[in-house]
Amino acid sequence: MNSPFLEAFAGTNETIPVWFMRQAGRYLPEYQAIKAAHSLETMFKTPDLAAEITCQPIDILGVDAAILFADILTLPGAMGFKIGFDDRKGPVIDTHFKMKDVHDHEEIGHITETIKQVKNKLTRNIPLIGFAGSPFTVLSFLIEGGSSVGYKKLFKYMKAETDAFHQLMEILTINTIRYLQQQIKAGADVVQLFDTCAGILSQEDFKDLVLPYVQRIFAALKVPSIYFVRNTAHLLSLLDLVNSDFLSVDHTVNLGTPATLNQIQKGVQGNLFNGNLYLDYPQLEKEVEKILLGGSQHQRYIFNLSHGVFPDVEVDKLKFVVDKVHEFKKIKV
Amino acid sequence: MNSPFLEAFAGTNETIPVWFMRQAGRYLPEYQAIKAAHSLETMFKTPDLAAEITCQPIDILGVDAAILFADILTLPGAMGFKIGFDDRKGPVIDTHFKMKDVHDHEEIGHITETIKQVKNKLTRNIPLIGFAGSPFTVLSFLIEGGSSVGYKKLFKYMKAETDAFHQLMEILTINTIRYLQQQIKAGADVVQLFDTCAGILSQEDFKDLVLPYVQRIFAALKVPSIYFVRNTAHLLSLLDLVNSDFLSVDHTVNLGTPATLNQIQKGVQGNLFNGNLYLDYPQLEKEVEKILLGGSQHQRYIFNLSHGVFPDVEVDKLKFVVDKVHEFKKIKV
Repeated sequence: MNSPFLEAFAGTNETIPVWFMRQAGRYLPEYQAIKAAHSLETMFKTPDLAAEITCQPIDILGVDAAILFADILTLPGAMGFKIGFDDRKGPVIDTHFKMKDVHDHEEIGHITETIKQVKNKLTRNIPLIGFAGSPFTVLSFLIEGGSSVGYKKLFKYMKAETDAFHQLMEILTINTIRYLQQQIKAGADVVQLFDTCAGILSQEDFKDLVLPYVQRIFAALKVPSIYFVRNTAHLLSLLDLVNSDFLSVDHTVNLGTPATLNQIQKGVQGNLFNGNLYLDYPQLEKEVEKILLGGSQHQRYIFNLSHGVFPDVEVDKLKFVVDKVHEFKKIKV
Repeated sequence: MNSPFLEAFAGTNETIPVWFMRQAGRYLPEYQAIKAAHSLETMFKTPDLAAEITCQPIDILGVDAAILFADILTLPGAMGFKIGFDDRKGPVIDTHFKMKDVHDHEEIGHITETIKQVKNKLTRNIPLIGFAGSPFTVLSFLIEGGSSVGYKKLFKYMKAETDAFHQLMEILTINTIRYLQQQIKAGADVVQLFDTCAGILSQEDFKDLVLPYVQRIFAALKVPSIYFVRNTAHLLSLLDLVNSDFLSVDHTVNLGTPATLNQIQKGVQGNLFNGNLYLDYPQLEKEVEKILLGGSQHQRYIFNLSHGVFPDVEVDKLKFVVDKVHEFKKIKV
């Protein structure tokens, strides 16, 4: 049985594949049932639970790929950074780390075990996407102590403590490669690198401070790969140089226009605005069609959102999107 | 005595004018001295104090314009929205408003009085910039309850409660016009509309949900005007259609390139990355020069930052930037 998701990397797929960032998550009653009985930390660290959560959206939504249910801060947690969990607030990060306490990580057993269990559970030909946060995005969490609006501490670290910044980027890069290689060895078919924050940078800073590290990561991976960035519009030409197979773009990019087709030669994933999942069905259908018409102009294309599924989105809306994508007849370029 | 800032609107200035967003603020010891003795709410609502804070950066930094020291939520506070103040956390917004409690605002006495006092204090020919938050950005605060990372509530409001969204945008637009006209009547020479959040939208949503309201505001103003948006890159062509005199852009735009010159015909303000104020002097000088070389390619240009001054930036760095801008000989296009 063929996988349209894997075939999309070669451009040989006949239907357009679809999956959603954060598809394994809070909007699903089946996820909430597990969450009612366990802490978030337990859910991440117990392979039985994490594997079940990873697989939930496959049958419920009918998506074409599974993505590992794991926390983006699992890797730095294994490298000596102190990451706690608060069930209400999410990760609690101690920003007062010492560089001497930072070390290469060992194999993270619960991650590799989860991947093995997922691969056993996926009876249909559904590939598993492994993932990591990019060094820059992980570093932004470590410096800011969580998500940020203004990124003051991160900018100061980049600009006033540049040597320390590069030292951290270096060790995060090495360990991101190791972590993703372990995921691949355990069974991940594809990997996505989440660089949610990189779009806050100017072209020049992205080129100097982020691009070289990202290139090393993708160069070291021998499976199909996807690079995700938000606020991608001003970086498109640079992002096309990244040696990932696909680029995942947000709703600030208009897929299929001559300008975008000119800037992105590689495979493209995206980019239904996640806020559009709050629309009623007729309006949602129109928006999905627009994305499909634009996206299918690209030689290699995977349907996804601009960013993660919000926790209060209706499950039926996502099923509806999956059906619309699968009904769409790919227009051959 | 002429004002290079006002002349820049006609393109007749001989030196490039410079001011900084958040120049009246926490990085100044003179501001901290006032803050040590008064609550933030008192500082905003006492014309003597607000006028003094507005004028502080003029002599200290040598900038070419003053900007009114006021809170972006003063206007909705006068329209029936419940906005409190917490000296540590900033504004505390009650998001559970009822549309029936929202009303047109009366003249806000402490704002007009502050403007009159500032105009009396400014003995050199330094213009005063009045300002307001744009309807969309103010609405984002009212719905999210403050700054936001993911804008989940705002997106839901836009997409699932579209009628209520437009009703709020309408009344905010009418009152933004009134508020800015009152500032102009009291003595503001120029106005800047802060649309910090608009850059999170797709081109299509910006065009449908924001642009018509912004156009009405600028059409109603009879003084030189500036429109500020962050994450401007994907919206540039649309933003050039806004009938403000100037567009203030962030560091995601490269000023002076053929593409940017083609997309922005109007006056342009910006766009030294605010994080670059953490660089050492030689590197900062290089970055300032790059911005000046690019910006001066535009027929009408004002130097500013990508966004506000961070509170821990050294005062001398800002003075240094002002001097470098003033030393620069404008290259005639």
